[in-house]
Amino acid sequence: FITETVLSDNTRNVLILLADDGGFEIGAYMNKICQTPNIDALASQSLIFNNAFTSVSSCSPSRAALLTGTPSHQNGMYGLHQGVHHFNSFDNVTSLPNLLREHGIKTGIIGKKHVGPASVYRFDYEQTEENNHINQVGRNITHIKLLVREFLHSANQEKQPFFLYVAFHDPHRCGHSEPQYGPFCERFGSGEEGMGVIPDWQPWYYQWDEVQLPYHIQDTEAARRDIAAQYTTMSRLDQGVALVLKELEAAGHLDDTLVIYTSDNGIPFPSGRTNFYDPGLREPLIVRSPLPTARRNQASGAMVSLLDLMPTVLDWFGIKQEEVESNDVWDSDKPKSFLPVLEKEPPYSDSEAVFASQTHHEITMYYPMRAVRTRRYKLIHNLNYGMPFPIDQDLYVSPTFQDILNRTRSKQPLPWYKTLKQYYYRPQWELYDMRADPAETNNLHGKPKLESVEAELRSRLLRWQRDSRDPWLCSPDAVLERGEHSAVCRSLHAPLHHYRPH
Amino acid sequence: FITETVLSDNTRNVLILLADDGGFEIGAYMNKICQTPNIDALASQSLIFNNAFTSVSSCSPSRAALLTGTPSHQNGMYGLHQGVHHFNSFDNVTSLPNLLREHGIKTGIIGKKHVGPASVYRFDYEQTEENNHINQVGRNITHIKLLVREFLHSANQEKQPFFLYVAFHDPHRCGHSEPQYGPFCERFGSGEEGMGVIPDWQPWYYQWDEVQLPYHIQDTEAARRDIAAQYTTMSRLDQGVALVLKELEAAGHLDDTLVIYTSDNGIPFPSGRTNFYDPGLREPLIVRSPLPTARRNQASGAMVSLLDLMPTVLDWFGIKQEEVESNDVWDSDKPKSFLPVLEKEPPYSDSEAVFASQTHHEITMYYPMRAVRTRRYKLIHNLNYGMPFPIDQDLYVSPTFQDILNRTRSKQPLPWYKTLKQYYYRPQWELYDMRADPAETNNLHGKPKLESVEAELRSRLLRWQRDSRDPWLCSPDAVLERGEHSAVCRSLHAPLHHYRPH
Ligand SMILES: [Ca+2]
Ligand SMILES: [Ca+2]
Ligand SMILES: [Mg+2]
Ligand SMILES: [Mg+2]
Repeated sequence: FITETVLSDNTRNVLILLADDGGFEIGAYMNKICQTPNIDALASQSLIFNNAFTSVSSCSPSRAALLTGTPSHQNGMYGLHQGVHHFNSFDNVTSLPNLLREHGIKTGIIGKKHVGPASVYRFDYEQTEENNHINQVGRNITHIKLLVREFLHSANQEKQPFFLYVAFHDPHRCGHSEPQYGPFCERFGSGEEGMGVIPDWQPWYYQWDEVQLPYHIQDTEAARRDIAAQYTTMSRLDQGVALVLKELEAAGHLDDTLVIYTSDNGIPFPSGRTNFYDPGLREPLIVRSPLPTARRNQASGAMVSLLDLMPTVLDWFGIKQEEVESNDVWDSDKPKSFLPVLEKEPPYSDSEAVFASQTHHEITMYYPMRAVRTRRYKLIHNLNYGMPFPIDQDLYVSPTFQDILNRTRSKQPLPWYKTLKQYYYRPQWELYDMRADPAETNNLHGKPKLESVEAELRSRLLRWQRDSRDPWLCSPDAVLERGEHSAVCRSLHAPLHHYRPH
Repeated sequence: FITETVLSDNTRNVLILLADDGGFEIGAYMNKICQTPNIDALASQSLIFNNAFTSVSSCSPSRAALLTGTPSHQNGMYGLHQGVHHFNSFDNVTSLPNLLREHGIKTGIIGKKHVGPASVYRFDYEQTEENNHINQVGRNITHIKLLVREFLHSANQEKQPFFLYVAFHDPHRCGHSEPQYGPFCERFGSGEEGMGVIPDWQPWYYQWDEVQLPYHIQDTEAARRDIAAQYTTMSRLDQGVALVLKELEAAGHLDDTLVIYTSDNGIPFPSGRTNFYDPGLREPLIVRSPLPTARRNQASGAMVSLLDLMPTVLDWFGIKQEEVESNDVWDSDKPKSFLPVLEKEPPYSDSEAVFASQTHHEITMYYPMRAVRTRRYKLIHNLNYGMPFPIDQDLYVSPTFQDILNRTRSKQPLPWYKTLKQYYYRPQWELYDMRADPAETNNLHGKPKLESVEAELRSRLLRWQRDSRDPWLCSPDAVLERGEHSAVCRSLHAPLHHYRPH
């Protein structure tokens, strides 16, 4: 109806608040130490998802997936967009901003874009790293506030419904790019000497020995200090969220805007970002619907994928999914709107599943993984399992990873749940019982008792790959031959085995 | 001088005749069976290079390297351009056609382009797969002739010097894309029923038992029939070369045009295309200079890379290489013009070397290799050696490869110089003495006698990677950290070993 009557009383808008590498360092998600009063306040008016997952644990691919409703292997964003990595979505992909604009909705992006080509991801209003310093549009919350004000003002003037995507760069690391601001840029704009001032930000500081240690990070002072820095940066994000929501209210759109808070991928710690373990895939998802019937201050256990974001937003605007031709090749396990969940918890089902697909992060980090996760089980297929799991430049220089390296090298105690060797070397298949083993340390692949469970997950994963036209459908033991209506895996006919040096 | 006076008596032009997957099935290169009278006639007026090498054994990366003078890892064309592969050079790369056009030279491409983005590789005149069926501009030699005529006519009318790049699609396979025309499209336009007619082509046919079998192809009827089909397609290419050269003569440019015949990568057989063994890297290179002082009907042993093509063409047009800023980061082993060789054979030197860099072919075929080859030795670094060497879709369906698979599977005799297992599984480092072992079957890596030879080759290869800004400089055992003026490899500190299944 939007296209017919933009001035109707039914005007609906969407605001997405996207954290960069953000995790569960949020009061509303039971972190007792990291203070996020503003996100918590939003959560108290929202539905909080406990089973939300990204489809890929890497920035550009996740953003492309979020903005197109297609996994990275389907839209072409196989890895990072910037610099030598240089990945781009296919030119014929339909994106949320392009589709919404065609329906008369004003689209805006403030913050980190990190996807391309420009023609596929075009917003009416763009203030991103492409025309600003990333810290100004992604971390300077005072500047972000003013940009949001500008966008909302013009949407109001033009009397247009809007889709505003505020992509914070917090709490991303910056030790690799701008170490002068600390490992999480927690000193950027802090008011400390030489760090500049962000007027609207009151930094919160933490003691390293008080942080709440996630199970996948080693219990050492170095790692804990790293987490404390991350918490401080969370205070900037949290106060930024408050500023944006205040602008929304000031512009008169509190009661007609669907507000979605989430993050693109897991936290930048071992087993987090770039991994398919839960710390890499599971995301905060907080959704505030202005509808009077919406659930508030409740938690949902529904299995939701960030691939569902596009159908959800289209549903909210009343735009039929059928129009998204280039995305529409699915037979089953297709992304779908989670709007109904905002009204009513769906009945518990063991068969709900989310899927994930990752190929590159940096161009040199080829480690394709495909995964399916139900409430109970997760199956991961590591396609390049003959080589070690790759470490990204940003994690490499982090205090946490350096600490793991140093302790391993010098044979000092390393109070971690894995060894570095285990972390690097992964088998082709990993199967975990998420209920009995939430830390994913006991690989059940090949266990006779779970034979049928594994077979079913595997065929379901393959079907999802086929439905989403995965070029890696047959990898690594076969060659894909695609006919007009079929995709056939033709075997390489040599028993695949692992190379051993002569 | 060109830019000042395009009408001067010194007008100089360039014609490149590029074969697609073409090898040494040429009389002038001592093939006694495959008849190529027209290429032979060109060769008799030319210098024939016996040590010319591509820098990458894959179509798009090779074409990007040829047109920019930079290896694939430096210009961003890490793999194939089309479809789901979707690789593109960086937007700021300087290409030969763009640079020449700025200097007032008319640029034309007829045939297979296979590179992007369009802005980086823009020709004044483009008749390619982007605006035609590839077979019409790449295999229909009558059509190609008419396009060449049109281009030369307009260059003459505009009194412009020209750079014309005729990129035949022959003798590429087509069993994967258009099997109805035979494995090498040898029936396309042959006049056989339903195959259409190319008026200017008189197909030559061969008996399977008479073909000249290269050492890297198994001696079976299936493989020999495959080669016979390739030979027939060579007759279309050969006659196409004659037609283009006749157009050049008719347009009055026989005496002012540098003519270069070469191929983008090795023949599409095992150990050829996508490989760094010589059948993948070594290329025919036949260069006819119109200068009276030029060597004719002679062979050169000089080590030449297709990376040298851009500096050679610039040298020919008198354009200073210094202008090519984005390419100019080299300290040593830099691509250089081979024009002087056309006049005089350089003194024999053991230290001459060529380099190669490959990463993907198809998007799923991640198998980065880096290599340095002197006259005597070749060192290959296989970066993803923990996984089997990947097989491309086009080779997979070929009669030759199917024959290898079938014989291996059914344990029939396979008269081949390797086993399939050897072909799939390669060590991290391969060192060959090309004089004693031209077939590259005896890996000398780690042999104490060659310790200093290997160490020198390895450091020279690394220096070349550093000078050409290789993102894989530190792969696979370290992480690359790039400062403003430095590139440092930081170790992953875990003894790299090979995964063995639990
Ligand atoms: Ca991120
Ligand atoms: Ca080729
Ligand atoms: Mg494209
Ligand atoms: Mg680009």
